[in-house]
Amino acid sequence: MPIVAHDRLLDIGQKLLEAIGTPEDIARSVAESLIDSNLKGVDSHGILRLPHYLKHIRGGEIQAAARPEVRADRGHTLTISGNGGFGIFAMEKAARILTDRAKESGLAAVSLIECGHTGRVGQFAEQLASENLFALILGGGAHHKWNLVAPHGGAKPALSTNPYAMALPGGEEGDTVVVDFATSAVARGKLLDRAARGEQVPFGWVLDADGRPSDDPTVLQRGGMQLPMAGHKGFGMGLIAELISFAMLHPGADAPDDFNWLMLALNIEAFSDVNDYRDRAGRYLERVRAVPPAEGFDKVMVPGEPEREREQERRRSGLTIPDSVWNSLVSEAERYGIPLEI
Amino acid sequence: MPIVAHDRLLDIGQKLLEAIGTPEDIARSVAESLIDSNLKGVDSHGILRLPHYLKHIRGGEIQAAARPEVRADRGHTLTISGNGGFGIFAMEKAARILTDRAKESGLAAVSLIECGHTGRVGQFAEQLASENLFALILGGGAHHKWNLVAPHGGAKPALSTNPYAMALPGGEEGDTVVVDFATSAVARGKLLDRAARGEQVPFGWVLDADGRPSDDPTVLQRGGMQLPMAGHKGFGMGLIAELISFAMLHPGADAPDDFNWLMLALNIEAFSDVNDYRDRAGRYLERVRAVPPAEGFDKVMVPGEPEREREQERRRSGLTIPDSVWNSLVSEAERYGIPLEI
Repeated sequence: MPIVAHDRLLDIGQKLLEAIGTPEDIARSVAESLIDSNLKGVDSHGILRLPHYLKHIRGGEIQAAARPEVRADRGHTLTISGNGGFGIFAMEKAARILTDRAKESGLAAVSLIECGHTGRVGQFAEQLASENLFALILGGGAHHKWNLVAPHGGAKPALSTNPYAMALPGGEEGDTVVVDFATSAVARGKLLDRAARGEQVPFGWVLDADGRPSDDPTVLQRGGMQLPMAGHKGFGMGLIAELISFAMLHPGADAPDDFNWLMLALNIEAFSDVNDYRDRAGRYLERVRAVPPAEGFDKVMVPGEPEREREQERRRSGLTIPDSVWNSLVSEAERYGIPLEI
Repeated sequence: MPIVAHDRLLDIGQKLLEAIGTPEDIARSVAESLIDSNLKGVDSHGILRLPHYLKHIRGGEIQAAARPEVRADRGHTLTISGNGGFGIFAMEKAARILTDRAKESGLAAVSLIECGHTGRVGQFAEQLASENLFALILGGGAHHKWNLVAPHGGAKPALSTNPYAMALPGGEEGDTVVVDFATSAVARGKLLDRAARGEQVPFGWVLDADGRPSDDPTVLQRGGMQLPMAGHKGFGMGLIAELISFAMLHPGADAPDDFNWLMLALNIEAFSDVNDYRDRAGRYLERVRAVPPAEGFDKVMVPGEPEREREQERRRSGLTIPDSVWNSLVSEAERYGIPLEI
C-alpha cells in the first residue's frame, strides 16, 4: 500500500477536482476535507470518496461548479440550498453564515438542503466551536433511499443512520471537544469491514432478515438490518433527526435521496464571558483526563483527542492508501492527464 | 399497596404542599407534575418525591414560595434563576417564556439555574412540542455532588447522568414524539432496584471499584460506578451536557449542587408550514409503526407512546402506591392535620 504525504495527496485531490471542472475554491475545500478525514483516521470519509465524487460528476449527480445559495433568510433561521453541488463546500459555507448570525444574535439555525455527501460532519461542528459557539448538527430525511436501521423493537428497517455532531471549545485554543456519531449501534462501514474479514460482531449491532438477534455481519447482505445505538435511546434520537430533516426541513412530499441537515449554533458569550468559560472548561476537562484508565484502556481521552493525536502522527508519517483506492486515483489521473509522482 | 385515584392523589399532594407554605399555583404545578409522572409510569419522578420535597423545605434547601425570575434578557437568549425554589415550577415557567420568544423569532434558548429537582424533564419538552416547537433540554453541571458515571475508558466517575430530552409534534394533536434519557447506560434507580432484588445486570452498565466490568449492581455500594450509554457516544453526549451546564451556564467558579439546564426551542414554522409538517410527520410515523415486531416485542412504539398508553390505563385503574411511600404521605398528612381518606 503506497504511503503518500498528506500535502501531496491534497494536491492530487485538488488537481483531479479542477480537471473535471470544479472551481478552484470548491476543489480546495473538498480536497482539504477529505485529506483532513484521512489525517484524523476517519478514512471512510477520506480520499477514497474522491473517485466516487468524480464518477458522480460525470454521471450528473453532483454539479461540480454549483454554489450554495440562501433560499430563505429570516434572520436567525435560514434555509440554504446546496444547489446539487458538493455537500462539503455547502456545509462549510453554511457554517460560515451560521457563525455570523449566531455571533450577532446569540443563536441561529440553518437548514441545509439539496446537497450531496457532506464528508465528516464533525469537521463543521469543529469549525463552529473554533468560533466560540456550541454547535449541533443533525441529518437525515432520506429514509426511502437509506433504509438501514430498525426501530427499537422492530424487525424491518425504517430509519437511516441519522448522525449527530456536537462541539464546544475546551480550555485552550485547539482543544475542541467534538462528538460525531451515527445513531445506529455502529457505522455501516465497520459492519461491512467485519463481514469482509469473516469476523463476528457483538449481539446488538444487527438483526437477521427475520428480526432475530445475530452476531453475523453478513446478514446485512441477506435482508438483515442494523440496530440503533443504546436501544430505545438511539432509536429516539434517530427518529427526532429524521422528523426534523424530513418533516420539518424538507420542502417536498416525498423523502429526498440525500440527507437534509439542521445546523444550530449558540454563542457562548450569550451566557458567559469566554475566558471564564475557557477556565471552567479547562479545569473540568483536566479532571476528566486525570481519571485512571479502566481495564483494556491506556488513558481517558476526550472526544476529538484521538483524532488530533492521529493527525499529528500522520502529518509526520504520511497517509497509507489502500491499493484499490490508489489504483482508482491513478486511473483517474491518467484519464485527466495529471502526472502522479509521489 | 394502596391503589389511589390520580385526582385524589393530586389533591393530597397539593394540600400537603400548601400546608407547608407553598403558594397555590406553585403547589398545583408541582403536584400535577408528580402525578403526571406516576400516570405515565415514571414512578421514580412521581409522588415518592413529595416527602423528600417537604423534608427539603423544612431543611431550608427548597424555598417553597420562591418564584423564578429573569436574570438576564438578551431577546433570544435568557438566563432564568429558580431562586432556590421548586425546579418543576421554574422549568414550567421557563418553558412558557421560551415558547413566546421562539414563536417571535424562530428560535430561542433559556439557561435555567439555581433551581431544585425538576421532575420528569420530558414533560417540559412535551410542553414546548405542543406549541409546534422542536425542544431540546439538557442538564448537568453538578459533577462534584453527583459524581456517578465513568468516562469511556476510565476507572473513576467524573460525570453525572447528564440527561437529554427532545420532543417534536407528530402527525396529530397529542401524538408528541418525546425522547427523554440519561446519558448513563441505565438510570440509577434501575440499578438500585436490581441490587435490592439481588439480581444481576448486563455487562456494560457498571464497573467495580477497580474499573473492571461487572454484572453485579451492588458494586455501586462498594466504590463501583455507572458506565455511559453506547460507550464513547454516551460519554461524548454527557461531556457536552456537562460543559454546557457547568462551563457555559454556571456563573461561579465551583460546580453547583443542583443541575443547570439549557432549554432550546426552534419554531417549526421557521422552516415549514405546520400542516405540511404534520402531514409528513404523520406519514413517516405511520411507516415506523407499521414495522413488524422483532422477537420479544409486541409492536413498535414511538417514543412517548408507551407512556401515553400507561396513562390511559392508570387514569382508569388508579395509581398503586408502594407502602413505604404511602406511609410517608400518611405521616406527613398527620403532621399538617390533613385528613387522608381515599
